[in-house]
Amino acid sequence: MRSGCFTLSTAAPAEFVDITGQARQAVAMSGIEEGLLCLFNPHTTAGLTVNEGCDPAVRQDLLGLFGQLLPPSWPCRHAEGNSPAHALATLTGSSLTMIITEGKLLLGAWQRIFFCEYDGPRSRAVHWKALAG
Amino acid sequence: MRSGCFTLSTAAPAEFVDITGQARQAVAMSGIEEGLLCLFNPHTTAGLTVNEGCDPAVRQDLLGLFGQLLPPSWPCRHAEGNSPAHALATLTGSSLTMIITEGKLLLGAWQRIFFCEYDGPRSRAVHWKALAG
Amino acid sequence: MRSGCFTLSTAAPAEFVDITGQARQAVAMSGIEEGLLCLFNPHTTAGLTVNEGCDPAVRQDLLGLFGQLLPPSWPCRHAEGNSPAHALATLTGSSLTMIITEGKLLLGAWQRIFFCEYDGPRSRAVHWKALAG
Repeated sequence: MRSGCFTLSTAAPAEFVDITGQARQAVAMSGIEEGLLCLFNPHTTAGLTVNEGCDPAVRQDLLGLFGQLLPPSWPCRHAEGNSPAHALATLTGSSLTMIITEGKLLLGAWQRIFFCEYDGPRSRAVHWKALAG
Repeated sequence: MRSGCFTLSTAAPAEFVDITGQARQAVAMSGIEEGLLCLFNPHTTAGLTVNEGCDPAVRQDLLGLFGQLLPPSWPCRHAEGNSPAHALATLTGSSLTMIITEGKLLLGAWQRIFFCEYDGPRSRAVHWKALAG
Repeated sequence: MRSGCFTLSTAAPAEFVDITGQARQAVAMSGIEEGLLCLFNPHTTAGLTVNEGCDPAVRQDLLGLFGQLLPPSWPCRHAEGNSPAHALATLTGSSLTMIITEGKLLLGAWQRIFFCEYDGPRSRAVHWKALAG
């Protein structure tokens, strides 16, 4: 199984959800020893990132900083009024490409993978594809 | 044909140009059923992103928000005076990696692919490479 | 040799270090004529980007602009006090996917690859993986 999809639920308007476990499970299911894993977020008010996973205060600070940069109350032309969330989706990025080596996902000591919710709470999905090589 | 390049012209200093059609054509030309598509922007005052393509007001709002964050009038050391456009290139990203499945590019219901012009109008190019796997 | 790692030292709190030479060496070591190169940064207060490499003033301007957007003095909850550097890591991105064609890394005329230090000076590493296809 070289590709798949997993789902998650977010609980707040803005939230970083740790999806490292699901990404590692995808690598295990692929059976690939050496290659790449691509994670893809199909939503337009969310993103994917790799950042510090040890101290939850980092994620709180990031959401605080991003909320100051792009306040949700900004006067949008878009009728749904959530353009700051769309802007954060572009600044964060919709996909991640990561290295698989010795059958495992390569991550730094403090790194975890996060789904970045900017317009929740919602039900969300993440697609993945693993390539050997 | 597993790689190629397409060109486009931008018409304004800042503009999001929908290149979803060209990306889908690249996937069709590759003949790949399962794999990855990498899009690469060779310019330093532009970027590539995936975001909402249904309501054009989202793109207008994004350009408005980005112009407030990084005003083009910022006093640059760089003689060309376009460092805010270079900064937006880094914040947006120069490449996209996307999933090909069942011969098609995987995109969410509201997602489209955009070339982000931050220092136009100009003639621009986008390179692509598709990998099977 | 299809994957590896190179190290670098940064000399300032915030700095863009040109790693184009190391990335090209990785492509040469891989022996791949057509494919993709993935660069991955395992640190949480740094990033990877492609931007203008000709005029060093562009990098100075980028660091000036980013320091204004996310001032290092921001009052963090995170005890280490470096959350603005973590935020810049997410906004810059932790990986790059680039095209290899005719045995060479595809880059635009003015493009260079940079390791973006946001919490230095430190010793840093960059992992790479090349895939043929």
